[in-house]
Amino acid sequence: MAERITPRSEDFGQWYVDVVLNAKLADYSPVKGCMVIRPTGYAIWEKIQQQLDSMFKETGHVNAYFPLFIPESFLHKEAEHVEGFAPECAVVTHGGGKKLEEPLVIRPTSETIINAMFTKWIQSYRDLPMLINQWANVVRWEMRTKLFLRTTEFLWQEGHTCHATEKEAREETIRMLNIYKKFAEEYMAIPIIDGIKTESEKFAGAVETYCIEMLMQDGRALQGGTSHLLGQNFAKAFGTKYLSKEGKQEYVWQTSWGVSTRLVGAIVLAHSDDKGLVLPPRLAPLQCVIIPIFKKDFDSSKLLEKINELKDKLKDKVSVKIDDTENNSPGFKFHQYEIEGVPVRVEIGPKDFENGVFTIARRDTGEKFTIPFKDAPKKIEGLMEEIQNAMFKKAKDILDSRTFTMDDYEAFKTKCEEGGMFLLHWCGRRECEDQIKADTKATIRCLSFDYKKEKGKCICCGKPSERRVHFARSH
Amino acid sequence: MAERITPRSEDFGQWYVDVVLNAKLADYSPVKGCMVIRPTGYAIWEKIQQQLDSMFKETGHVNAYFPLFIPESFLHKEAEHVEGFAPECAVVTHGGGKKLEEPLVIRPTSETIINAMFTKWIQSYRDLPMLINQWANVVRWEMRTKLFLRTTEFLWQEGHTCHATEKEAREETIRMLNIYKKFAEEYMAIPIIDGIKTESEKFAGAVETYCIEMLMQDGRALQGGTSHLLGQNFAKAFGTKYLSKEGKQEYVWQTSWGVSTRLVGAIVLAHSDDKGLVLPPRLAPLQCVIIPIFKKDFDSSKLLEKINELKDKLKDKVSVKIDDTENNSPGFKFHQYEIEGVPVRVEIGPKDFENGVFTIARRDTGEKFTIPFKDAPKKIEGLMEEIQNAMFKKAKDILDSRTFTMDDYEAFKTKCEEGGMFLLHWCGRRECEDQIKADTKATIRCLSFDYKKEKGKCICCGKPSERRVHFARSH
Repeated sequence: MAERITPRSEDFGQWYVDVVLNAKLADYSPVKGCMVIRPTGYAIWEKIQQQLDSMFKETGHVNAYFPLFIPESFLHKEAEHVEGFAPECAVVTHGGGKKLEEPLVIRPTSETIINAMFTKWIQSYRDLPMLINQWANVVRWEMRTKLFLRTTEFLWQEGHTCHATEKEAREETIRMLNIYKKFAEEYMAIPIIDGIKTESEKFAGAVETYCIEMLMQDGRALQGGTSHLLGQNFAKAFGTKYLSKEGKQEYVWQTSWGVSTRLVGAIVLAHSDDKGLVLPPRLAPLQCVIIPIFKKDFDSSKLLEKINELKDKLKDKVSVKIDDTENNSPGFKFHQYEIEGVPVRVEIGPKDFENGVFTIARRDTGEKFTIPFKDAPKKIEGLMEEIQNAMFKKAKDILDSRTFTMDDYEAFKTKCEEGGMFLLHWCGRRECEDQIKADTKATIRCLSFDYKKEKGKCICCGKPSERRVHFARSH
Repeated sequence: MAERITPRSEDFGQWYVDVVLNAKLADYSPVKGCMVIRPTGYAIWEKIQQQLDSMFKETGHVNAYFPLFIPESFLHKEAEHVEGFAPECAVVTHGGGKKLEEPLVIRPTSETIINAMFTKWIQSYRDLPMLINQWANVVRWEMRTKLFLRTTEFLWQEGHTCHATEKEAREETIRMLNIYKKFAEEYMAIPIIDGIKTESEKFAGAVETYCIEMLMQDGRALQGGTSHLLGQNFAKAFGTKYLSKEGKQEYVWQTSWGVSTRLVGAIVLAHSDDKGLVLPPRLAPLQCVIIPIFKKDFDSSKLLEKINELKDKLKDKVSVKIDDTENNSPGFKFHQYEIEGVPVRVEIGPKDFENGVFTIARRDTGEKFTIPFKDAPKKIEGLMEEIQNAMFKKAKDILDSRTFTMDDYEAFKTKCEEGGMFLLHWCGRRECEDQIKADTKATIRCLSFDYKKEKGKCICCGKPSERRVHFARSH
C-alpha cells in the first residue's frame, strides 16, 4: 500500500511530497492548484484550530463569518491592496444562469468586505476595540503549487481588529504575533525568528507587516504567520469612523493577522524523516498506538487484557488506540504508524508478557526500550512532554547550527546554495534587496526584534549599515 | 441602539428580521444574497457544530476538506444532479488574470468532487465503509433570500459515505437522520417529524431523501436536515468501485447528509417572542447573566462580592457573565439581554442583598422570583434543564395543536391560510401533489415514519390512498 519515501538526501522536494501522500495528509485533486485535505491531515488542522481559537478567545476575540464574494470595486478602493491581489484573483462572472452586472472576486483575504461591515457597525468609541476573527477558505491563483505550502485554495484564520488609537493597534499587532510565536514554539515545536518585513515584502495595504519565520530541514525558510498594522488605510478607503470621547469623527486604527493550513506543511518540513511523518505530541491526533504481537500457542486474551488495562489508564491523558486487527502483520503495522507519525508505539508479545513489560518505541528518535507494566502509564504520559521538548530542541539546534553571520558577498553566494539563515549587513535600500535576490534567490525574511546595533557595511553595495538582517531562500 | 421589534401578530416576516438584526445574529452584506454572520450568531453556530461534530465522530466519521471549485463537466456526469443544480450555480470563468479553459462551478454540494476522490481512494472491501464529513461553505444562487433561511452562500456540514452493500448504506442514511432528530429535539428543543420525501422533493441525484421537518410559530414548516440514500448513482457516474471479498469489482453504495446555518434561523422562528431572541440553554453561548443594581448610599462592593461568589460557583457548570458596566442603566441591560435571548438573568440590588436573595428572571416565560443566596447555584444550574424541557414542551404543544387531520379539500384550502401541519390522504401521484401546491402553496413535507395504515381517498382526486402524509406551507 505505502509507496517508497524518497530519502531527503536524494531529493528533498520529492521526499516532502512522499511523506504527505504516504501519511495520507493530503492528495491532489482534479481541480488545478487545489488539494484535498484527507482525514489524517485535517485532524492535525483541527488540533491547530482548537488551540489557536482558544488563544484568540482568551485575548478577547470573537469569531464571525463574512461573504466569500467580494465586489470587484471593493478591491479597488485601497490602491496598494488591489495592486497586490488583483492578479491572483478568481472571478465569478455568472450566477444563477445570468451574467453578473459586477463581477465578484473570491476573497483572497477579507479586509475590504469586512471594512464595509465595520463602517456599518462602528459608531462611537464605545464600540471599540472591535476584535473579530474568521476561520475561512480563501483563494489566490497560483501557478506553481505544493501540497499545503502553496495552493490556490487554502484554509486559514484571519483576524481583523479596530482600535481608537495607533498605539492600541500596534499593541494588538504584536500581541497576536506573540500568540503565533508561542503556538509555533510550544505546540509545533518549531523555533521562530520574529520581526518586521521590509517594504517590499509587506502585505499589500499594510503600514507594517510583522512575521514569524522558521527554518526547515533543507535550510530554506518558511513564513509561518503574519500580523499587519494596517494603520488607517482601509478605514479611509471605506470610511470607517467613530465618534471619539471628545465628540470628533475619527478614523479607526486597524490590524489583521493570519495563519493557514500551510502550518501543516511546516510541521512536515521541520520534523519528519526518511521513514515518514514525525508529529509533535501536542498536535498529534493520535499520540500512542498499542500493538499486540499475537503468537500461536500463546493465549492472546492475556495480551488483550494487559493492553486494555493500559489503555484505560492512559485515555484521560493521552490520545490512545489499540490496533489488534489481524489483517496485517505487526511489522507492517509498525511501519504504517511510523509513516503516520504517531509519537509513541507500545508493543507487547508473549516474551514481554512473561517479563512483565511493554516495549516502547519513540517515533522521534527511533529508540526502543522496555518498561514494567506498573510504570508504563506514567512513563508514557511523561514521554509526551519529553518528545515535545526533544523535538523543539532538535529543531532549535538545526536553526542555530545553520545560522551564519557573513560579510563577504562572494562567500555568501556560495554558502547560500547549501541553505541556511544568513545574518547580513544591509543598507536598507530596495535596490540591494533586489540585487541580492537576483544573485542568490535569498530574500530578507525579516528585521528581527532580537538584534544588536553594530556598525557595518551593506554586503551588496558597501554603504553603511546599523544592523544585520535575516536573509534566506524560502519555501 | 435597539430598534423596535415588530410584534409577530403584526407582521411575522418582519418580526423575524427584527429579532435577527436586533440580537445581532446576522446582518445584510453589500454582496447580493449573502449575509454576514455576526459574533453572537456565529457563537450559536459554533455550539451547533461542536455538538454535531462530536455526534458524528462517536459514530465513526472523520472530517476532511475538498475543493471549493468543481469542474463544470463533473456536474454533468450525473444527469439528475446537473438538472437540479446547474441553474443555481455561481461560475468562475477567470483566474489569475486569464480566461479558464474549463469554467469552475462553486460547490453547491460536493457529491461530484468527493466521488472523484473516492474513486482514487477506494480499492477493496477493506477500504469500506468510508465515512467522511466536511464543514464548509456552499453557494446556491438565490433570487429571494432571507437571513439564515435562504442565502446564496451558507455554511453547512455534508457527510459523504461509501458502503459495500445497499443495506449498510440504508442503515447509515437512517442513522444520520436519527442523529439530526436527536440534535433537533434535545438541543434545539424543537420536536420533529421524520420521514421520506416524495420523488419531486428529493435531492437531485438521490434514490431516496429522508428529512426532519419542523413546525414554526407562524404555522409554516421548515426542513431542518436531510439524509440521502444515493444508491450507486454517483458511483456509476464516477466509476467508484471496490474489489469484493469474492474478488469481483462492485460499485459502492453511498449516502450523503447535511444541515446548515439555517438551523440558527429555525431556533429563532421556533422559540423567540416579541421581546427578541429566546435560546434553548444547551445552545446558548451565554446561559446566565448577572446584573448588580447599584444605588447611591449603598456600598456596591458588597453586591460585587456576592455576585463574584455566585459566578465562581456556577462557572464550571453554566456559562456565566457579570455585567457591572456603569454606562447603561439596569433596565437598559435587562432589555438588551432579553433581545439577545440569554436564558437566565440574575439581579441583585440593595433590597435583595438585605433580604439575602437574588432575583432571578427566566427568559422563556418571563417569570421573576427570588432565591436565597445559598440555594442559588443549584437552582440556576437546574433551571437550565428546566428551561430546555419547557421550551421543548411548548414547541411540542404548538406542533400538536396545529396539526390537523382533514378530508375535505375546500375546508383544507381555507384552513391552510392560517398555517399548520395537515395530515391528508394522497393517492401518491405527482399530478395531485402539484395541484395541491398550485391551489394552496402547501407541499408534502414528508411521508412520516410514524403513521398508521388507513384506507381513505386522495383529498385532491378521490382515488384510493393507504395512509395520510404531512402537508404544509414551508419557509
